[in-house]
Amino acid sequence: MTVKLHGDERIDQLMRYNLQIIQSKSVFSFSIDALLLDYFSNIPSHGRATIVDLCSGNGILPLALSQRSKSSIIGMELQPRLVDMAKRSLELNDLSRQVEIIEADLADAFNYIPKDSVDVITCNPPYFEWSETSQKNPNEHLAIARHEIHTTLEEVIRIASGLLKMNGRAFFVYRPSRLIEMLDLFRSYQLMPKKLQFIYPKKNCESNMILVEVIKHGKKSGLKILPPLYIHDENGEYLPEIKEIIYG
Amino acid sequence: MTVKLHGDERIDQLMRYNLQIIQSKSVFSFSIDALLLDYFSNIPSHGRATIVDLCSGNGILPLALSQRSKSSIIGMELQPRLVDMAKRSLELNDLSRQVEIIEADLADAFNYIPKDSVDVITCNPPYFEWSETSQKNPNEHLAIARHEIHTTLEEVIRIASGLLKMNGRAFFVYRPSRLIEMLDLFRSYQLMPKKLQFIYPKKNCESNMILVEVIKHGKKSGLKILPPLYIHDENGEYLPEIKEIIYG
Repeated sequence: MTVKLHGDERIDQLMRYNLQIIQSKSVFSFSIDALLLDYFSNIPSHGRATIVDLCSGNGILPLALSQRSKSSIIGMELQPRLVDMAKRSLELNDLSRQVEIIEADLADAFNYIPKDSVDVITCNPPYFEWSETSQKNPNEHLAIARHEIHTTLEEVIRIASGLLKMNGRAFFVYRPSRLIEMLDLFRSYQLMPKKLQFIYPKKNCESNMILVEVIKHGKKSGLKILPPLYIHDENGEYLPEIKEIIYG
Repeated sequence: MTVKLHGDERIDQLMRYNLQIIQSKSVFSFSIDALLLDYFSNIPSHGRATIVDLCSGNGILPLALSQRSKSSIIGMELQPRLVDMAKRSLELNDLSRQVEIIEADLADAFNYIPKDSVDVITCNPPYFEWSETSQKNPNEHLAIARHEIHTTLEEVIRIASGLLKMNGRAFFVYRPSRLIEMLDLFRSYQLMPKKLQFIYPKKNCESNMILVEVIKHGKKSGLKILPPLYIHDENGEYLPEIKEIIYG
Protein backbone atom coordinates (compact mmCIF):
# COMPACT_ATOMS: atom_id res chain seq x y z
CA MET A 1 0.00 0.00 0.00
CA THR A 2 1.34 3.42 -0.90
CA VAL A 3 -0.10 6.80 0.02
CA LYS A 4 0.63 10.34 -1.03
CA LEU A 5 2.81 12.44 1.26
CA HIS A 6 2.35 16.21 1.40
CA GLY A 7 4.89 18.95 2.18
CA ASP A 8 7.53 17.86 4.69
CA GLU A 9 5.66 14.69 5.68
CA ARG A 10 7.62 11.51 6.23
CA ILE A 11 6.74 7.93 7.14
CA ASP A 12 8.03 6.90 10.56
CA GLN A 13 7.98 3.48 12.15
CA LEU A 14 5.89 2.87 15.24
CA MET A 15 8.45 0.31 16.35
CA ARG A 16 6.62 -1.44 19.15
CA TYR A 17 3.87 -2.52 16.79
CA ASN A 18 5.69 -2.61 13.48
CA LEU A 19 3.32 0.02 12.09
CA GLN A 20 3.95 3.01 9.84
CA ILE A 21 2.80 6.50 10.72
CA ILE A 22 2.83 9.71 8.73
CA GLN A 23 4.49 12.54 10.61
CA SER A 24 5.62 16.07 9.91
CA LYS A 25 7.89 18.40 11.81
CA SER A 26 5.81 21.41 10.84
CA VAL A 27 2.40 19.85 11.48
CA PHE A 28 2.55 17.08 14.07
CA SER A 29 4.75 14.27 15.27
CA PHE A 30 3.98 12.17 18.30
CA SER A 31 6.04 12.37 21.46
CA ILE A 32 6.87 9.87 24.15
CA ASP A 33 3.80 11.08 26.05
CA ALA A 34 1.58 9.27 23.55
CA LEU A 35 3.58 6.05 23.85
CA LEU A 36 3.38 6.22 27.65
CA LEU A 37 -0.39 6.72 27.42
CA ASP A 38 -0.63 3.68 25.15
CA TYR A 39 1.44 1.61 27.60
CA PHE A 40 -0.70 2.79 30.55
CA SER A 41 -4.11 2.27 28.92
CA ASN A 42 -5.71 -0.99 29.92
CA ILE A 43 -8.08 -1.91 27.07
CA PRO A 44 -10.09 -5.09 26.43
CA SER A 45 -8.58 -7.35 23.78
CA HIS A 46 -12.01 -8.64 22.66
CA GLY A 47 -14.06 -7.09 19.89
CA ARG A 48 -17.18 -5.99 21.75
CA ALA A 49 -15.99 -2.69 23.27
CA THR A 50 -16.14 0.86 22.00
CA ILE A 51 -12.84 2.65 22.41
CA VAL A 52 -12.49 6.37 21.74
CA ASP A 53 -9.37 8.52 21.59
CA LEU A 54 -9.94 12.25 22.01
CA CYS A 55 -7.50 14.89 20.69
CA SER A 56 -6.08 12.24 18.37
CA GLY A 57 -3.50 14.33 16.51
CA ASN A 58 -2.02 12.23 13.70
CA GLY A 59 -3.74 9.11 15.06
CA ILE A 60 -0.89 7.66 17.09
CA LEU A 61 -3.15 6.34 19.87
CA PRO A 62 -5.84 4.77 17.64
CA LEU A 63 -3.09 3.09 15.59
CA ALA A 64 -1.37 1.70 18.68
CA LEU A 65 -4.57 0.61 20.44
CA SER A 66 -5.76 -1.26 17.35
CA GLN A 67 -2.88 -3.68 17.86
CA ARG A 68 -4.05 -4.62 21.34
CA SER A 69 -7.80 -4.95 20.79
CA LYS A 70 -10.22 -6.36 18.27
CA SER A 71 -12.76 -3.67 19.21
CA SER A 72 -13.59 -0.77 16.96
CA ILE A 73 -11.69 2.39 17.72
CA ILE A 74 -12.74 5.96 17.04
CA GLY A 75 -10.32 8.86 17.04
CA MET A 76 -11.62 12.43 17.25
CA GLU A 77 -9.53 15.33 16.02
CA LEU A 78 -10.32 18.94 15.24
CA GLN A 79 -7.63 19.83 12.72
CA PRO A 80 -8.44 18.68 9.13
CA ARG A 81 -4.75 18.51 8.25
CA LEU A 82 -4.13 16.04 11.10
CA VAL A 83 -7.26 14.03 10.34
CA ASP A 84 -6.00 13.66 6.79
CA MET A 85 -2.61 12.45 8.00
CA ALA A 86 -4.23 9.99 10.39
CA LYS A 87 -6.52 8.60 7.67
CA ARG A 88 -3.62 8.05 5.30
CA SER A 89 -1.69 6.28 8.09
CA LEU A 90 -4.68 3.97 8.59
CA GLU A 91 -4.68 3.15 4.86
CA LEU A 92 -0.95 2.55 4.96
CA ASN A 93 -1.46 -0.09 7.66
CA ASP A 94 -4.72 -1.45 6.29
CA LEU A 95 -6.56 -0.47 9.46
CA SER A 96 -9.36 1.65 7.99
CA ARG A 97 -11.99 -0.96 8.81
CA GLN A 98 -11.16 -1.18 12.52
CA VAL A 99 -10.30 2.47 13.13
CA GLU A 100 -12.34 5.53 12.21
CA ILE A 101 -11.15 9.12 12.54
CA ILE A 102 -13.86 11.74 13.06
CA GLU A 103 -13.06 15.32 12.19
CA ALA A 104 -14.91 17.29 14.84
CA ASP A 105 -14.68 19.82 17.59
CA LEU A 106 -14.81 18.11 20.99
CA ALA A 107 -17.74 20.35 21.87
CA ASP A 108 -19.78 18.53 19.21
CA ALA A 109 -18.71 15.01 20.28
CA PHE A 110 -22.23 13.93 21.31
CA ASN A 111 -23.44 14.58 17.73
CA TYR A 112 -21.13 11.80 16.54
CA ILE A 113 -20.92 9.37 19.44
CA PRO A 114 -23.91 8.69 21.75
CA LYS A 115 -23.64 9.70 25.38
CA ASP A 116 -23.02 6.90 27.91
CA SER A 117 -21.91 4.52 25.14
CA VAL A 118 -18.12 4.26 25.39
CA ASP A 119 -16.16 1.62 27.32
CA VAL A 120 -12.71 3.15 27.22
CA ILE A 121 -11.41 6.63 26.43
CA THR A 122 -7.81 7.67 25.95
CA CYS A 123 -6.75 11.30 25.73
CA ASN A 124 -3.53 13.29 25.49
CA PRO A 125 -5.01 16.79 25.82
CA PRO A 126 -3.30 20.13 25.20
CA TYR A 127 -1.22 20.85 28.30
CA PHE A 128 -0.87 24.60 28.34
CA GLU A 129 -3.33 27.25 29.37
CA TRP A 130 -3.96 29.86 26.77
CA SER A 131 -4.09 33.59 27.15
CA GLU A 132 -3.53 36.51 24.77
CA THR A 133 -0.14 37.05 26.38
CA SER A 134 1.09 33.47 26.81
CA GLN A 135 4.04 32.24 24.79
CA LYS A 136 2.74 30.01 22.05
CA ASN A 137 4.24 27.99 19.28
CA PRO A 138 4.18 30.27 16.20
CA ASN A 139 3.19 27.20 14.18
CA GLU A 140 -0.60 27.10 14.31
CA HIS A 141 -0.90 23.30 14.02
CA LEU A 142 1.49 22.72 16.90
CA ALA A 143 0.00 25.55 18.94
CA ILE A 144 -3.50 24.03 18.72
CA ALA A 145 -2.20 20.60 19.75
CA ARG A 146 -0.33 21.97 22.77
CA HIS A 147 -2.32 24.97 23.98
CA GLU A 148 -5.90 25.29 25.13
CA ILE A 149 -6.88 27.31 22.08
CA HIS A 150 -9.85 25.28 20.82
CA THR A 151 -10.57 23.26 23.93
CA THR A 152 -9.80 23.30 27.64
CA LEU A 153 -9.07 20.66 30.23
CA GLU A 154 -12.59 21.15 31.58
CA GLU A 155 -14.13 20.56 28.15
CA VAL A 156 -12.03 17.45 27.59
CA ILE A 157 -13.09 16.01 30.95
CA ARG A 158 -16.75 16.98 30.52
CA ILE A 159 -16.90 15.27 27.12
CA ALA A 160 -15.01 12.19 28.32
CA SER A 161 -17.40 11.80 31.23
CA GLY A 162 -20.45 12.30 29.01
CA LEU A 163 -19.29 9.69 26.50
CA LEU A 164 -18.39 7.00 29.03
CA LYS A 165 -20.78 4.29 30.16
CA MET A 166 -21.28 3.81 33.87
CA ASN A 167 -18.03 2.22 35.15
CA GLY A 168 -16.32 3.07 31.86
CA ARG A 169 -12.65 4.00 32.14
CA ALA A 170 -10.60 6.88 30.81
CA PHE A 171 -6.82 7.20 30.59
CA PHE A 172 -5.04 10.55 30.44
CA VAL A 173 -1.49 11.76 30.17
CA TYR A 174 -0.96 15.22 31.65
CA ARG A 175 1.34 17.56 33.57
CA PRO A 176 1.78 17.39 37.37
CA SER A 177 1.72 21.17 37.69
CA ARG A 178 -2.00 21.05 36.81
CA LEU A 179 -2.84 17.84 38.70
CA ILE A 180 -4.91 19.55 41.39
CA GLU A 181 -7.01 21.33 38.78
CA MET A 182 -7.43 18.05 36.93
CA LEU A 183 -8.54 16.19 40.07
CA ASP A 184 -11.02 18.98 40.89
CA LEU A 185 -12.49 18.62 37.40
CA PHE A 186 -12.67 14.84 37.64
CA ARG A 187 -14.65 15.34 40.82
CA SER A 188 -17.01 17.82 39.15
CA TYR A 189 -17.71 15.37 36.34
CA GLN A 190 -18.08 12.17 38.41
CA LEU A 191 -14.83 10.57 37.30
CA MET A 192 -13.01 8.87 40.15
CA PRO A 193 -9.21 8.42 39.92
CA LYS A 194 -8.23 4.77 40.35
CA LYS A 195 -4.57 4.73 39.32
CA LEU A 196 -1.87 7.36 39.13
CA GLN A 197 1.62 6.85 37.77
CA PHE A 198 4.26 9.54 37.94
CA ILE A 199 6.93 9.85 35.26
CA TYR A 200 10.33 11.36 36.10
CA PRO A 201 12.81 12.50 33.43
CA LYS A 202 15.61 10.87 35.48
CA LYS A 203 16.66 10.15 39.07
CA ASN A 204 16.46 13.00 41.59
CA CYS A 205 14.24 15.12 39.34
CA GLU A 206 10.70 16.27 39.90
CA SER A 207 8.00 14.47 37.96
CA ASN A 208 7.16 16.06 34.60
CA MET A 209 4.35 13.80 33.47
CA ILE A 210 1.45 11.90 35.00
CA LEU A 211 -0.69 9.03 33.83
CA VAL A 212 -4.17 8.84 35.32
CA GLU A 213 -6.88 6.19 35.11
CA VAL A 214 -10.38 7.25 36.13
CA ILE A 215 -13.65 5.37 36.35
CA LYS A 216 -17.08 6.89 35.82
CA HIS A 217 -19.10 6.91 39.07
CA GLY A 218 -16.37 4.92 40.87
CA LYS A 219 -15.80 4.83 44.63
CA LYS A 220 -13.72 7.46 46.37
CA SER A 221 -11.21 5.26 48.16
CA GLY A 222 -8.69 2.78 46.86
CA LEU A 223 -6.51 4.98 44.67
CA LYS A 224 -3.33 3.15 43.66
CA ILE A 225 -0.05 4.94 43.02
CA LEU A 226 1.88 2.73 40.63
CA PRO A 227 5.68 2.42 40.76
CA PRO A 228 7.39 5.51 39.32
CA LEU A 229 8.82 5.44 35.82
CA TYR A 230 12.10 7.12 34.92
CA ILE A 231 12.77 8.02 31.29
CA HIS A 232 16.56 8.41 31.11
CA ASP A 233 19.55 7.08 33.01
CA GLU A 234 22.48 9.27 34.14
CA ASN A 235 23.94 9.25 30.62
CA GLY A 236 20.72 10.42 28.99
CA GLU A 237 19.99 6.93 27.58
CA TYR A 238 16.49 5.50 27.69
CA LEU A 239 16.06 3.06 30.58
CA PRO A 240 15.09 -0.55 29.70
CA GLU A 241 11.40 -0.09 30.67
CA ILE A 242 11.18 2.90 28.33
CA LYS A 243 12.97 1.09 25.50
CA GLU A 244 10.36 -1.65 25.90
CA ILE A 245 7.57 0.94 25.65
CA ILE A 246 9.10 2.52 22.53
CA TYR A 247 10.58 -0.43 20.69
CA GLY A 248 8.65 -3.40 22.12
CA MET B 1 18.79 14.12 83.83
CA THR B 2 16.84 11.02 84.81
CA VAL B 3 13.09 10.42 84.58
CA LYS B 4 10.79 7.72 85.83
CA LEU B 5 9.74 4.99 83.43
CA HIS B 6 6.36 3.29 83.77
CA GLY B 7 5.30 -0.25 82.83
CA ASP B 8 7.07 -1.50 79.70
CA GLU B 9 8.50 1.89 78.78
CA ARG B 10 12.05 2.10 77.49
CA ILE B 11 14.34 4.92 76.40
CA ASP B 12 15.16 4.81 72.70
CA GLN B 13 17.64 6.92 70.78
CA LEU B 14 16.41 9.34 68.14
CA MET B 15 19.65 8.75 66.27
CA ARG B 16 19.55 11.54 63.73
CA TYR B 17 19.48 14.16 66.45
CA ASN B 18 21.17 12.35 69.30
CA LEU B 19 18.03 12.69 71.42
CA GLN B 20 16.37 10.27 73.80
CA ILE B 21 12.71 9.37 73.57
CA ILE B 22 10.48 7.34 75.85
CA GLN B 23 8.64 4.60 73.99
CA SER B 24 6.49 1.63 74.82
CA LYS B 25 5.38 -1.32 72.77
CA SER B 26 2.00 -1.40 74.46
CA VAL B 27 1.35 2.35 74.36
CA PHE B 28 3.18 4.05 71.51
CA SER B 29 6.42 3.94 69.61
CA PHE B 30 7.10 6.09 66.58
CA SER B 31 7.39 4.61 63.11
CA ILE B 32 9.35 5.62 60.05
CA ASP B 33 6.34 7.67 58.96
CA ALA B 34 7.19 10.23 61.64
CA LEU B 35 10.83 10.42 60.58
CA LEU B 36 9.80 10.91 56.96
CA LEU B 37 7.45 13.70 58.00
CA ASP B 38 10.31 15.35 59.92
CA TYR B 39 12.60 15.05 56.88
CA PHE B 40 9.90 16.49 54.59
CA SER B 41 8.85 19.41 56.80
CA ASN B 42 10.50 22.64 55.79
CA ILE B 43 10.58 24.80 58.93
CA PRO B 44 12.29 28.15 59.60
CA SER B 45 15.48 27.88 61.64
CA HIS B 46 14.95 31.30 63.26
CA GLY B 47 13.16 31.83 66.57
CA ARG B 48 10.21 33.98 65.50
CA ALA B 49 7.82 31.35 64.15
CA THR B 50 5.06 29.36 65.80
CA ILE B 51 5.25 25.68 64.95
CA VAL B 52 2.50 23.25 65.93
CA ASP B 53 2.42 19.48 65.68
CA LEU B 54 -1.06 17.92 65.79
CA CYS B 55 -1.67 14.31 66.88
CA SER B 56 1.75 14.34 68.56
CA GLY B 57 1.76 10.86 70.09
CA ASN B 58 4.84 10.49 72.27
CA GLY B 59 6.24 13.78 70.98
CA ILE B 60 8.52 12.47 68.25
CA LEU B 61 7.85 15.37 65.85
CA PRO B 62 8.17 18.22 68.41
CA LEU B 63 11.43 16.67 69.65
CA ALA B 64 12.85 16.35 66.16
CA LEU B 65 11.70 19.78 64.95
CA SER B 66 13.25 21.48 68.00
CA GLN B 67 16.67 20.50 66.65
CA ARG B 68 16.10 22.37 63.39
CA SER B 69 14.52 25.58 64.64
CA LYS B 70 14.91 28.08 67.44
CA SER B 71 11.16 28.77 67.35
CA SER B 72 8.79 27.62 70.03
CA ILE B 73 7.02 24.38 69.24
CA ILE B 74 3.68 23.17 70.51
CA GLY B 75 2.56 19.58 70.34
CA MET B 76 -1.11 18.68 70.80
CA GLU B 77 -2.15 15.22 71.88
CA LEU B 78 -5.40 13.78 73.20
CA GLN B 79 -4.21 10.78 75.21
CA PRO B 80 -2.96 11.68 78.74
CA ARG B 81 -0.70 8.64 78.82
CA LEU B 82 1.11 9.81 75.66
CA VAL B 83 1.26 13.43 76.80
CA ASP B 84 2.95 12.20 79.97
CA MET B 85 5.50 10.22 77.97
CA ALA B 86 6.20 13.19 75.71
CA LYS B 87 6.68 15.55 78.66
CA ARG B 88 9.15 13.20 80.31
CA SER B 89 11.05 12.90 77.01
CA LEU B 90 11.28 16.70 76.88
CA GLU B 91 12.69 16.76 80.42
CA LEU B 92 15.13 14.02 79.49
CA ASN B 93 16.51 16.20 76.69
CA ASP B 94 16.18 19.50 78.54
CA LEU B 95 13.75 20.82 75.93
CA SER B 96 10.82 21.80 78.16
CA ARG B 97 11.43 25.51 77.60
CA GLN B 98 11.29 25.35 73.81
CA VAL B 99 8.62 22.68 73.44
CA GLU B 100 5.21 22.56 75.08
CA ILE B 101 2.81 19.62 74.92
CA ILE B 102 -0.88 20.46 75.26
CA GLU B 103 -3.25 17.70 76.34
CA ALA B 104 -6.38 18.43 74.35
CA ASP B 105 -8.91 17.13 71.90
CA LEU B 106 -8.25 18.56 68.43
CA ALA B 107 -11.84 19.83 68.40
CA ASP B 108 -10.85 22.25 71.21
CA ALA B 109 -7.61 23.43 69.57
CA PHE B 110 -8.79 27.03 69.16
CA ASN B 111 -9.24 27.27 72.95
CA TYR B 112 -5.48 26.80 73.33
CA ILE B 113 -3.95 28.30 70.21
CA PRO B 114 -5.45 31.38 68.50
CA LYS B 115 -6.89 30.98 65.02
CA ASP B 116 -4.76 32.31 62.13
CA SER B 117 -1.64 32.42 64.32
CA VAL B 118 0.53 29.47 63.29
CA ASP B 119 3.34 29.53 60.72
CA VAL B 120 3.93 25.81 60.29
CA ILE B 121 1.92 22.73 61.18
CA THR B 122 3.04 19.13 61.04
CA CYS B 123 0.67 16.22 61.43
CA ASN B 124 0.77 12.43 61.24
CA PRO B 125 -2.96 11.75 61.60
CA PRO B 126 -4.68 8.41 62.22
CA TYR B 127 -4.82 6.63 58.86
CA PHE B 128 -7.72 4.26 59.16
CA GLU B 129 -11.42 4.93 58.94
CA TRP B 130 -13.38 3.71 61.87
CA SER B 131 -16.59 1.78 61.93
CA GLU B 132 -18.18 -0.58 64.45
CA THR B 133 -17.17 -3.49 62.25
CA SER B 134 -13.67 -2.45 61.20
CA GLN B 135 -10.67 -4.42 62.44
CA LYS B 136 -8.99 -2.38 65.15
CA ASN B 137 -5.98 -2.79 67.31
CA PRO B 138 -7.26 -4.38 70.54
CA ASN B 139 -4.84 -2.08 72.38
CA GLU B 140 -6.79 1.11 73.03
CA HIS B 141 -3.76 3.46 72.95
CA LEU B 142 -2.60 2.13 69.58
CA ALA B 143 -6.15 1.99 68.22
CA ILE B 144 -6.69 5.69 68.98
CA ALA B 145 -3.39 6.65 67.34
CA ARG B 146 -4.15 4.68 64.17
CA HIS B 147 -7.91 4.77 63.72
CA GLU B 148 -10.31 7.67 63.38
CA ILE B 149 -11.86 7.02 66.76
CA HIS B 150 -11.53 10.45 68.37
CA THR B 151 -10.85 12.52 65.27
CA THR B 152 -11.23 12.27 61.50
CA LEU B 153 -9.20 13.43 58.55
CA GLU B 154 -11.73 16.20 58.02
CA GLU B 155 -11.36 17.42 61.60
CA VAL B 156 -7.57 17.37 61.36
CA ILE B 157 -7.64 19.41 58.15
CA ARG B 158 -10.29 21.82 59.44
CA ILE B 159 -8.26 22.53 62.57
CA ALA B 160 -4.96 22.82 60.68
CA SER B 161 -6.51 25.32 58.29
CA GLY B 162 -8.07 27.31 61.13
CA LEU B 163 -4.79 27.53 63.05
CA LEU B 164 -2.63 28.55 60.10
CA LYS B 165 -1.87 32.16 59.19
CA MET B 166 -2.52 33.23 55.62
CA ASN B 167 0.25 31.58 53.56
CA GLY B 168 1.14 29.35 56.49
CA ARG B 169 2.25 25.84 55.59
CA ALA B 170 1.23 22.41 56.80
CA PHE B 171 3.01 19.09 56.27
CA PHE B 172 1.22 15.75 56.42
CA VAL B 173 2.14 12.11 56.11
CA TYR B 174 -0.72 9.91 54.94
CA ARG B 175 -1.83 6.93 52.86
CA PRO B 176 -2.22 7.07 49.05
CA SER B 177 -5.44 5.05 49.17
CA ARG B 178 -7.11 8.09 50.76
CA LEU B 179 -5.31 10.78 48.74
CA ILE B 180 -8.36 11.83 46.72
CA GLU B 181 -10.41 12.28 49.89
CA MET B 182 -7.54 14.25 51.42
CA LEU B 183 -7.26 16.53 48.38
CA ASP B 184 -11.03 17.12 48.40
CA LEU B 185 -10.79 18.15 52.06
CA PHE B 186 -7.80 20.44 51.44
CA ARG B 187 -9.92 22.13 48.81
CA SER B 188 -12.88 22.51 51.18
CA TYR B 189 -10.65 24.15 53.79
CA GLN B 190 -8.63 26.44 51.50
CA LEU B 191 -5.37 24.53 51.75
CA MET B 192 -3.57 24.29 48.42
CA PRO B 193 -1.17 21.40 47.80
CA LYS B 194 2.28 22.64 46.80
CA LYS B 195 4.46 19.55 47.05
CA LEU B 196 3.76 15.85 46.97
CA GLN B 197 6.29 13.10 47.55
CA PHE B 198 5.44 9.44 47.13
CA ILE B 199 7.12 6.78 49.24
CA TYR B 200 7.51 3.25 47.91
CA PRO B 201 8.42 0.25 50.11
CA LYS B 202 10.82 -0.93 47.38
CA LYS B 203 11.24 -1.00 43.59
CA ASN B 204 8.26 -2.13 41.49
CA CYS B 205 5.80 -1.72 44.36
CA GLU B 206 2.88 0.63 44.67
CA SER B 207 3.34 3.63 46.91
CA ASN B 208 2.26 3.06 50.51
CA MET B 209 2.88 6.52 51.93
CA ILE B 210 2.60 10.13 50.81
CA LEU B 211 4.09 13.36 52.08
CA VAL B 212 2.10 16.50 51.31
CA GLU B 213 2.88 20.19 51.77
CA VAL B 214 -0.05 22.59 51.61
CA ILE B 215 -0.26 26.36 51.85
CA LYS B 216 -3.23 28.26 53.22
CA HIS B 217 -4.96 30.28 50.47
CA GLY B 218 -2.27 29.33 47.95
CA LYS B 219 -2.66 29.31 44.18
CA LYS B 220 -4.08 26.32 42.34
CA SER B 221 -1.30 25.69 39.86
CA GLY B 222 2.35 24.86 40.33
CA LEU B 223 2.12 21.60 42.26
CA LYS B 224 5.51 19.89 42.40
CA ILE B 225 5.92 16.11 42.55
CA LEU B 226 9.25 15.50 44.26
CA PRO B 227 11.48 12.54 43.33
CA PRO B 228 10.13 9.26 44.71
CA LEU B 229 11.66 7.74 47.82
CA TYR B 230 12.18 4.00 48.22
CA ILE B 231 12.53 2.55 51.72
CA HIS B 232 14.23 -0.82 51.17
CA ASP B 233 16.53 -2.35 48.57
CA GLU B 234 16.03 -5.84 47.12
CA ASN B 235 17.53 -7.42 50.26
CA GLY B 236 15.20 -5.59 52.62
CA GLU B 237 17.98 -3.22 53.76
CA TYR B 238 17.30 0.48 54.19
CA LEU B 239 18.48 2.50 51.21
CA PRO B 240 21.13 5.20 51.83
CA GLU B 241 18.62 8.10 51.72
CA ILE B 242 16.50 6.36 54.35
CA LYS B 243 19.52 5.59 56.54
CA GLU B 244 20.32 9.30 56.38
CA ILE B 245 16.77 10.15 57.47
CA ILE B 246 16.89 7.67 60.37
CA TYR B 247 20.49 7.87 61.54
CA GLY B 248 21.63 11.26 60.22
